[in-house]
Amino acid sequence: MQSSAIREILKITQRPDVISFAGGLPAPDLFPMEDVRRAADAALTRYGAAALQYSTTEGHPPLREWIAAQAGIPAGNVQIVTGSQQGLDLLGKLLIGEGDVVLVEAPTYLGALQSFQPYLPQYVEMPTDGGGIDVEALEGILKAQQAAGRPARLLYAIPNFQNPTGRTLSLERRERLVELTAEYGVLLLEDDPYGQLRFTGEALPSLYELGLRRSGDVDRNHVIYSSSFSKTLVPGLRDAWVQAAAPIISKLIQAKQGADLHTPTLNQMIVTELLPILPAQIERVRAAYGERARLMVTAIREHLPPEAEFTEPQGGMFLWITLPERLDTEALLPGAVERRVAYVPGRPFFALGGGHSTMRLSYSNASPAQIAAGMAALGETVRGALEE
Amino acid sequence: MQSSAIREILKITQRPDVISFAGGLPAPDLFPMEDVRRAADAALTRYGAAALQYSTTEGHPPLREWIAAQAGIPAGNVQIVTGSQQGLDLLGKLLIGEGDVVLVEAPTYLGALQSFQPYLPQYVEMPTDGGGIDVEALEGILKAQQAAGRPARLLYAIPNFQNPTGRTLSLERRERLVELTAEYGVLLLEDDPYGQLRFTGEALPSLYELGLRRSGDVDRNHVIYSSSFSKTLVPGLRDAWVQAAAPIISKLIQAKQGADLHTPTLNQMIVTELLPILPAQIERVRAAYGERARLMVTAIREHLPPEAEFTEPQGGMFLWITLPERLDTEALLPGAVERRVAYVPGRPFFALGGGHSTMRLSYSNASPAQIAAGMAALGETVRGALEE
Repeated sequence: MQSSAIREILKITQRPDVISFAGGLPAPDLFPMEDVRRAADAALTRYGAAALQYSTTEGHPPLREWIAAQAGIPAGNVQIVTGSQQGLDLLGKLLIGEGDVVLVEAPTYLGALQSFQPYLPQYVEMPTDGGGIDVEALEGILKAQQAAGRPARLLYAIPNFQNPTGRTLSLERRERLVELTAEYGVLLLEDDPYGQLRFTGEALPSLYELGLRRSGDVDRNHVIYSSSFSKTLVPGLRDAWVQAAAPIISKLIQAKQGADLHTPTLNQMIVTELLPILPAQIERVRAAYGERARLMVTAIREHLPPEAEFTEPQGGMFLWITLPERLDTEALLPGAVERRVAYVPGRPFFALGGGHSTMRLSYSNASPAQIAAGMAALGETVRGALEE
Repeated sequence: MQSSAIREILKITQRPDVISFAGGLPAPDLFPMEDVRRAADAALTRYGAAALQYSTTEGHPPLREWIAAQAGIPAGNVQIVTGSQQGLDLLGKLLIGEGDVVLVEAPTYLGALQSFQPYLPQYVEMPTDGGGIDVEALEGILKAQQAAGRPARLLYAIPNFQNPTGRTLSLERRERLVELTAEYGVLLLEDDPYGQLRFTGEALPSLYELGLRRSGDVDRNHVIYSSSFSKTLVPGLRDAWVQAAAPIISKLIQAKQGADLHTPTLNQMIVTELLPILPAQIERVRAAYGERARLMVTAIREHLPPEAEFTEPQGGMFLWITLPERLDTEALLPGAVERRVAYVPGRPFFALGGGHSTMRLSYSNASPAQIAAGMAALGETVRGALEE
């Protein structure tokens, strides 16, 4: 399943007769359609032919400058990429040599594993609990890898409303994670597509921000930050960015040049035109996803057996269910789809296997009626399997 | 220079006081601005939120189908990519292992060398003359590589109005090239961004078409074809495609998924909306580039010393000048820029070095007045150097 999982998921979500909690799709009913239409028109008027011409690899200057200002860093430390996925791919290409030890959460974002795979890393999994990465266990792993002469090269983490689990790393763990990786000389790649979409609890500093405080120098920060406009505005424009120290950005520019010369010019300009509406748009998405998450949590309590454990996300698009060990969520999927509900079995999110009784559900792109009907169908599926 | 050459070139072309023949920029004065504006609007209306949502990795179905119909092949043999550059990068990733022998023209497209480089090929150069690849010399190379136990894996060629030379491969050479590569088990990657932009002479069949005739089976064609809407419509949308046998396409889909999930959705829909105006647009571009090429050839005859050899392109955007051996075009460039004209020194286009006395000129994005003034300045530069 691993290699083509995302693709197959995107296909299932296109079947209109299935209520799909499988996709990682932002809600299209929240897309600011008329704003995008006006933004495209405005960009073509403002920039004329330059909006459709080749442009610089680094990205559209006003967009880089805005991102940099938000982060309080120079624009030179920002690289625009064609979706976060491209950032992960290029960073994999730059940072991972064959056999390099890459630490990943268990479970982690499937698309990152797919991006890194061509560069042949040796994955080492970090144990996680309801609070995300177990940093004490991590210290043991870092020590052991160093002692074995195979020190970790890169640590990949999603601290906010993680994909697939919806879990959030506490401030204390963030500080420890940044400290430990710095101490052991491990590059820390922070993937943060959902950070803006918090609907409950207090915002926490990014690992990047903590790394910056620690190093005191934007060009000596060992944390690399990746984020995107896909989840806050719209995904189909494929506009995202990477923040990093100058030596990494300068290699990233070269890698990006070989990969696609530059991110589409018009798309960067459209996003730039949309920046004034971004705060209100984020509020709309937060409110809607918060409501959908609450409905799904309520429906889980109503329909799933009490043995099913689940996360209550503070933001983002996903939650994670762990069924009793004797159930296999891949085996259950055909029965669920027969009942017209779909989820993603958890197994592909584990770099080294396992997770057979877990599943990821996305509530972002589901109406209240779909959540009620879909979770009832899922409950039937699970209860039926438990009774067998 | 090699690694950041394109980027630096793009920067020089942005200086308004320099007449630049250096860029490979299509003429923005020919961009169908109002058609693009209407197409963006129409795509948003026709597809609604789907125009801004994630979409399938393979590409927008109507666009794939149109491309496939033009080539007389099934849509399943077409993969949409984010600019030709991405196609080259992904094909490099799939097809080139460390140390694999890759045959390239001398000179060849610099961006292809940059795309392939991360996969650590061993380049072997094919000698060229005014008619492109010397196929008799190629046969000797293929034999020698095979005898040495290092058979070539991939041959990269630009048969139409090559970048950087503007040369076109004859039908006879095309047939021999397809035959030889098939015979020696070498994959043939045909890069054809300019093929539609022929302004003189007769259109010749693509290598892909000849490969298809030879194999009689779209899924056993050893020729892989890459082309783009960048030179016919506009480059800033980054819409291009690859045609290949199913086993290659299926790996390409996986590689693309890891690289950027999919090409921006809206952009593919905009291009699809523009397909009805494409024939008229191609006619406009052909007529304009044909006129500009003729003016530049005339200006070369007028201003450059008779020792300067040059190509007379039948299409595309480039021509190639070879100065007497004792001149070095990298050394001449600062003097040329002082006289407010820019070109690209030829050296970076050679995978294995050489070409110190060559230069690439692009006429696509230059007015008659710029061609006259720029070529006079270039003539002064060259004549001055010859007199030293």
